[in-house]
Amino acid sequence: MNEKWLKQQAEEISMALARSGIRWAMPVDDAVRGQKVFVTDSTNVAAYIDHTLLAPTASREQIGRLCQEALEYRFASVCVNPGHVRLAARLLAGSPVKTCTVIGFPLGATTTLSKVMEARDAVANGAQELDMVINVGALMERDYARVYSDIRAVRDAAPGLVLKVILETGYLSKEQIVQGCILVKMAGADFVKTCTGFGPGKAELEDITLMREVVGPDFGVKASGGIRDRKTAMAMIKAGANRIGASAGVAIVQGEEGKGDY
Amino acid sequence: MNEKWLKQQAEEISMALARSGIRWAMPVDDAVRGQKVFVTDSTNVAAYIDHTLLAPTASREQIGRLCQEALEYRFASVCVNPGHVRLAARLLAGSPVKTCTVIGFPLGATTTLSKVMEARDAVANGAQELDMVINVGALMERDYARVYSDIRAVRDAAPGLVLKVILETGYLSKEQIVQGCILVKMAGADFVKTCTGFGPGKAELEDITLMREVVGPDFGVKASGGIRDRKTAMAMIKAGANRIGASAGVAIVQGEEGKGDY
Repeated sequence: MNEKWLKQQAEEISMALARSGIRWAMPVDDAVRGQKVFVTDSTNVAAYIDHTLLAPTASREQIGRLCQEALEYRFASVCVNPGHVRLAARLLAGSPVKTCTVIGFPLGATTTLSKVMEARDAVANGAQELDMVINVGALMERDYARVYSDIRAVRDAAPGLVLKVILETGYLSKEQIVQGCILVKMAGADFVKTCTGFGPGKAELEDITLMREVVGPDFGVKASGGIRDRKTAMAMIKAGANRIGASAGVAIVQGEEGKGDY
Repeated sequence: MNEKWLKQQAEEISMALARSGIRWAMPVDDAVRGQKVFVTDSTNVAAYIDHTLLAPTASREQIGRLCQEALEYRFASVCVNPGHVRLAARLLAGSPVKTCTVIGFPLGATTTLSKVMEARDAVANGAQELDMVINVGALMERDYARVYSDIRAVRDAAPGLVLKVILETGYLSKEQIVQGCILVKMAGADFVKTCTGFGPGKAELEDITLMREVVGPDFGVKASGGIRDRKTAMAMIKAGANRIGASAGVAIVQGEEGKGDY
């Protein structure tokens, strides 16, 4: 990572926002850190996992089982579609397991207003964490103002909640991933996240390393998409991820017990 | 198609709705027709086509080209993501080509309120046709009241617009497709539609035949998902489709001119 180039990217983005009359939330120097240091406690992999079931065919019974597993294994959260938030929040009430849902998912191509309304509705139904999809098309067109405003509006609609922004890295160049990370951080979200699992590509170690390098040590990086076993999950954490999205959470944790190699 | 069985399905659904205190919009006898007669003018295939670009990576330039092509070939509509509706509506203003968008797309797994807000937003931005995704999970769970209410709420949010409901047939059994068609019709929508193109499966001739048979001759059936050439499009129309969703609209029409076999 060329730190000078990184700062240049951030300057370009901030100038583009300024031209659109947007005031961003964070000084450019804070938005990019370029630091590689990241220390994590990898002994308790369950605490990293967003236990995920986003299949459109999911039944209420399956959501119930997902929540039971999350309580049993002490996962960080369950991640479900907005239509299942109320059920999950009720089942997890009073526990440390958070209810996470997705916004503008999986295409990220709806309007900002729709994302905002969906976020408000999710909050009203009991969601505690939101994984929104970035406006991928606008990012690829370098329409930074649109990308920023989209994230910022959801941020403002859900103050206090953990907000993760999915870049859908499978569509993006390394440069676009960097630009996405800068925009996510400037807009005041809490995490950058790799993939929806419904698009092309999956969580790649080199993308996690890059994302961690851009956002610095004090920001969230969620690896998601195609993480199906403990070995891959641990590699993602070592590369800089501090959250793992996976539908294979139980297999990942049971790998730990079965093999005992961590 | 066993007509008696079909009526039974409709009766079961109407009883389930009644138990939930829901008043449906259409007499059961009207909701299922079981008629096979369907006459169509297949000489002008362009008039059947919803010219579609729903890739999350789509640029404004690509949407512009899509609209130009739709005007040139006189397609029925352009179908774009909600974030592009305003642009498309502006480019198509005053023309006979409609602006169509998608709601709760492609998973159909968001809340009814979110679908309603997204529909209202789309109408405000100039959408004239809405393709919403049914609550697939609820349909598979036989939660007919939830499926019905979801469609009915979007119907009420967009009076006068053409409302198509995507069943995502790739997930469904024949029986579930029949139940979906009955619910769509009872809820007052205008079309049943096969696939999002983002899920499993594609438009199948036997599904189109079945859907047309259930909804009768005076209702819309849109074939979408994997239709890439003129031959397939024409076969869908002959099987009972009166609308074709395709990103290959130009190829479909040019096939007509190039080969001249229709």
